[in-house]
Amino acid sequence: MNAAELHKDAIVIDGLVCGKMNLELFQDMHKGGVTTASCTMAFWENFQGTVNNIAGVNKIIDENPEMLLKVRTTADIRRAKAEGKTGVLMSFQNTYAYEDQISYVQIFKELGVGIAQMCYNTQNLVGTGCYERDGGLSDFGREIMWEMNRVGVMCDLSHVGSKTSEEVILESKKPVCYSHCLPSGLKEHPRNKSDEELKFIADRGGFVGVTMFAPFLKNGINSTIEDYVEAIRYVFNIVGEDQIGIGTDFTQGQGQDFFEYLTHDKGYARRLTNFGKIINPKGIRTLGEFPNLTEALLKDGFSETQVRKIMGENWVRILGEVWGE
Amino acid sequence: MNAAELHKDAIVIDGLVCGKMNLELFQDMHKGGVTTASCTMAFWENFQGTVNNIAGVNKIIDENPEMLLKVRTTADIRRAKAEGKTGVLMSFQNTYAYEDQISYVQIFKELGVGIAQMCYNTQNLVGTGCYERDGGLSDFGREIMWEMNRVGVMCDLSHVGSKTSEEVILESKKPVCYSHCLPSGLKEHPRNKSDEELKFIADRGGFVGVTMFAPFLKNGINSTIEDYVEAIRYVFNIVGEDQIGIGTDFTQGQGQDFFEYLTHDKGYARRLTNFGKIINPKGIRTLGEFPNLTEALLKDGFSETQVRKIMGENWVRILGEVWGE
Repeated sequence: MNAAELHKDAIVIDGLVCGKMNLELFQDMHKGGVTTASCTMAFWENFQGTVNNIAGVNKIIDENPEMLLKVRTTADIRRAKAEGKTGVLMSFQNTYAYEDQISYVQIFKELGVGIAQMCYNTQNLVGTGCYERDGGLSDFGREIMWEMNRVGVMCDLSHVGSKTSEEVILESKKPVCYSHCLPSGLKEHPRNKSDEELKFIADRGGFVGVTMFAPFLKNGINSTIEDYVEAIRYVFNIVGEDQIGIGTDFTQGQGQDFFEYLTHDKGYARRLTNFGKIINPKGIRTLGEFPNLTEALLKDGFSETQVRKIMGENWVRILGEVWGE
Repeated sequence: MNAAELHKDAIVIDGLVCGKMNLELFQDMHKGGVTTASCTMAFWENFQGTVNNIAGVNKIIDENPEMLLKVRTTADIRRAKAEGKTGVLMSFQNTYAYEDQISYVQIFKELGVGIAQMCYNTQNLVGTGCYERDGGLSDFGREIMWEMNRVGVMCDLSHVGSKTSEEVILESKKPVCYSHCLPSGLKEHPRNKSDEELKFIADRGGFVGVTMFAPFLKNGINSTIEDYVEAIRYVFNIVGEDQIGIGTDFTQGQGQDFFEYLTHDKGYARRLTNFGKIINPKGIRTLGEFPNLTEALLKDGFSETQVRKIMGENWVRILGEVWGE
């Protein structure tokens, strides 16, 4: 089976897409052979803002039933594959959307939210993000985590501080993930994870999705798909072939306003970081180029079985575990 | 001047009342000769719930102009005294009411909120309360504090954790307070403050209001007004005669539902503590008995000047400083 055939045959999961949620984005996702993408419905938004984001994406799905379906279970992912559609898995980058209501974990699960990042960059009611001093998981955060365990929402730790992350990894009753991260072994950055952190989550049954977000890659905006594969290989060597996947962090279609929103606390307060210009790695600049990743992984020497695992099968297995299937 | 005359002549400030905000409460306050009371408008409420609480109290004030007035400045407090009215100073026990909006500090100041406690018992976006591990002031909390400094809202630390309190004391550009606390030197309790903590805030220009909330007093619900005066004397000996005041924590008119609301995180989640039965100290069971406190202070040997300071003048001075008058 050549690369193109393998990509077409494989289940392809992108564990993190936060592009502009419009028809063009989903069309390009579909063109790229993405079986299911985890799509960000909340950064700094409160409950109602998040519901509005979900409603907006629901509308696109409903208007394009020949191309899209909403993913609530791994059976939905398999159905998307079988029917040649792209599944939309809704997810959060911040539990702020739950506000102070533990019961909203289930409310949002019923609306399709199957993964939620505990904190986004800074402190919230649950814990602290990776851009400030981190006092660890709050007692309320522990209650939210237990509810996520019960309801079946995966705890994501990508933008979470080191101490909060460690406590969630130790205390969650279900596997947790870094849905989209890079190793600090290749580049030092507050968002990147050390070898010890990667090993720590993997040793406890967790999962690591590897991102290609240029500011965190060794070669920045001059990166190519080979730099991305190098990072995947680096993580693979630490966590093994069963606990790794893809979480691109595609921001396709977003403008400067969006990055200003992301890089300020609460979307408007103090500046946390400055990404500068963002250009995705050459070879995978758009979701439509996703097949190039399968090819690049094969070229790097990963076996077909390994490529299938990395490109999606591992995500499906671990999501099934978390979702209690 | 005998005790009754002194009480009638003095400015009497209660730095913390969270009774049921109805006409009966304010009538009893007025009967007790209270010049101005700081009235809690928010515990766990969000922005809108807090606005609704304020609107409810506005209505009572507007319907009783012969008895009540809204306090925004220390001139309002003096006017209340001159006109024989009771002033209503609005305050928060939790900055959660600001939600994630720094600009809401000014919005609520315009609505009359001149004191806000940074955290109530647990972690919020600003820092952490006294009933869980405290990682300190968050970066957003620092922005909120600076805005409170700018706008003129006093930072209250009564229910705030030790580390967050220390950082606010050190970093605030305006004097801060424990509006209602007791010394752990008389009884160990997560809500009580150690001699070191009392000295720390006083040495840095801060203020201490002494509460009579029975569960934190040495003799619990068997306490008398003498136990309350003992605590005032204890704090007085540490912080001196110019940085001490009254903050009773009267919960008059509230039922069991209210205490359940207070003692659960977010008003409904895990239990934080259990007060058991609450009976105010004998001699000051109701706001209407406030004159007994003046009498008891005199009886304990405080001079008339000291009693005037403790009963209200110190509060007025420090509020004037914070409010930038």
